[in-house]
Amino acid sequence: MREKLLHSDIKFRGKVLEFRLDTVELVNGKTATRELVIHPGAVSIVALDGEKIIIVKQYRHPVGEILWEIPAGKLDPGEEPLHCAQRELYEETGCRAMDWKHLSTFYTTPGFSNEIMHLYLATGLVQEEQSLDEDEFLSVEKVSWQEAMSMIARGEIKDAKSIVGICLTYAVKTGRTVQS
Amino acid sequence: MREKLLHSDIKFRGKVLEFRLDTVELVNGKTATRELVIHPGAVSIVALDGEKIIIVKQYRHPVGEILWEIPAGKLDPGEEPLHCAQRELYEETGCRAMDWKHLSTFYTTPGFSNEIMHLYLATGLVQEEQSLDEDEFLSVEKVSWQEAMSMIARGEIKDAKSIVGICLTYAVKTGRTVQS
Repeated sequence: MREKLLHSDIKFRGKVLEFRLDTVELVNGKTATRELVIHPGAVSIVALDGEKIIIVKQYRHPVGEILWEIPAGKLDPGEEPLHCAQRELYEETGCRAMDWKHLSTFYTTPGFSNEIMHLYLATGLVQEEQSLDEDEFLSVEKVSWQEAMSMIARGEIKDAKSIVGICLTYAVKTGRTVQS
Repeated sequence: MREKLLHSDIKFRGKVLEFRLDTVELVNGKTATRELVIHPGAVSIVALDGEKIIIVKQYRHPVGEILWEIPAGKLDPGEEPLHCAQRELYEETGCRAMDWKHLSTFYTTPGFSNEIMHLYLATGLVQEEQSLDEDEFLSVEKVSWQEAMSMIARGEIKDAKSIVGICLTYAVKTGRTVQS
């Protein structure tokens, strides 16, 4: 079932992403091309302030919309995922968290990208000051579980990592999933 | 909060994806560059055979792993999402479904791509013959809800759209989400 990489053609190397056209050998011996994006990896955070979840609203140029998402960000080179999660939560919301728990690690788009997403649960929040990157503009809200699940059902939260984060945490919280 | 597109530089136009470097004007008047991927859009399907969910196993070159996922595929040019879902379910699993319901539409990676994912629930399955593309190799299994949720909890299902599909359907099925 595995494909063998025959040739890799880097079409563009950006500051964050690399765009590649790979030639692979299939299990039947034929060759095929694969268009793909090399991504540094990312983190996302379900941050709970008591019974409320922190969500952030920001403009996303690729989709041309303002979206509600859970806090998230890309790994810096060599950065540990947990450190990245702590940094991003602080930068985007001004919150430090006393307790951190790894919830899941998943691929966002394995069909065309290697982006890996490390999802954390952050509790015991202490509010300090937001510290955004200079090209980052976002606003922060806290919503109840019911409101977050309603926002997903109504299509107001329509970002995959946020849906994964909220649904998985809700399932764990309510004991409605089988834990490993 | 919105960014204004000043310039779009196409770095590579593939058969499926387009890689772009855009220059945008931020709300503070400064400019920034955005690396992004233009994607044709996709569908994914939670297909239920009685109390079992269909999952497919296939090699994903971008991540170099064999993954369990729900059936899915890219939209052909001009194709209606529901038609694409019916086509992909049939091609990948050999199943036709009597009943189709739209569950959700979400963005997989709004930070760097415009990929939109249309998620459907398919029930009333009739088994015919698998009809894969010539460069597609995958195997099909049926698992219980409990097994699917366990596979997510154990990290054996680690594809975002599949986690979204299974968790959302499970939440609706068990009446544990607020419906719109």
